Amino acid sequence: MSRPDITAVTLGVRDVERSLDFYVRGLGFRPVLHQPGEIAFVQCAPGQLLALWDVTRMPGEYGDVAHGPSAPPVSLGHNAGTAEQVEQLYAAALAAGATSVSAPAVRAWGGVSACVADPDGFRWDFVHNPAFRTDPDGTVHLGEPDGTDEVDEPGR
Amino acid sequence: MSRPDITAVTLGVRDVERSLDFYVRGLGFRPVLHQPGEIAFVQCAPGQLLALWDVTRMPGEYGDVAHGPSAPPVSLGHNAGTAEQVEQLYAAALAAGATSVSAPAVRAWGGVSACVADPDGFRWDFVHNPAFRTDPDGTVHLGEPDGTDEVDEPGR
Repeated sequence: MSRPDITAVTLGVRDVERSLDFYVRGLGFRPVLHQPGEIAFVQCAPGQLLALWDVTRMPGEYGDVAHGPSAPPVSLGHNAGTAEQVEQLYAAALAAGATSVSAPAVRAWGGVSACVADPDGFRWDFVHNPAFRTDPDGTVHLGEPDGTDEVDEPGR
Repeated sequence: MSRPDITAVTLGVRDVERSLDFYVRGLGFRPVLHQPGEIAFVQCAPGQLLALWDVTRMPGEYGDVAHGPSAPPVSLGHNAGTAEQVEQLYAAALAAGATSVSAPAVRAWGGVSACVADPDGFRWDFVHNPAFRTDPDGTVHLGEPDGTDEVDEPGR
């Protein structure tokens, strides 16, 4: 595939400028557009934006959405090439003001991952999954190069 | 940029198979891996996966995450080239079993958008924003070709 099916991921945030600062100055995302107090956009993948939208403005178009007593059951993830990179990403996120949720650890599925929360509690996971690989055209596999993915086997 | 900063978007779902059916048979996403009752992955952008994870399994690694009384303040969006495509995407999502949240309409920021909910209430927005454009390398702009984006102006 060459075209993203998801061209934007929108997070409802309590303070647009706080979130923009976290993602741009803290994590190094490229800012694209900023309407103070309302919405900001940064680039998060080729052809794809991360939108940081004042959560109080969402219900008109998005219906009954809101932060609840627990963090949203959602995570944005970054697959890293090595376990060491997971540790580096985790440390960098904490230095940028993220909150630790779970430190880097070997998981039951065989890889290493860590989880942090952004200023609104949105989860980010940093993952080293040896089975994760991407073709030059962007096609992702979660299995062996011989084609044994696309079957039921451990991995994420 | 050529490398995604987000390589996975994970949604905590109440029924993995129901969600997988919605995304693969309903919306046409490519399945990548499926561990019945636990987690499934589909491709959602070049180098990027959408993970559908049993929400009850998330807290160990992701901490206190759960569905609340309102839908999560998050949306996955698809920018379409025309307003007609927004209507087509909206109709196709409803045909696939999505629930309407807001029908296609011209919004205050000047474009057309619609919003639906997936089987767990996760929002999807279909958007035609005339200011949205992508360079061949995947860099996204939300402004005029003369470079007047990256400033505070309406758009999303």
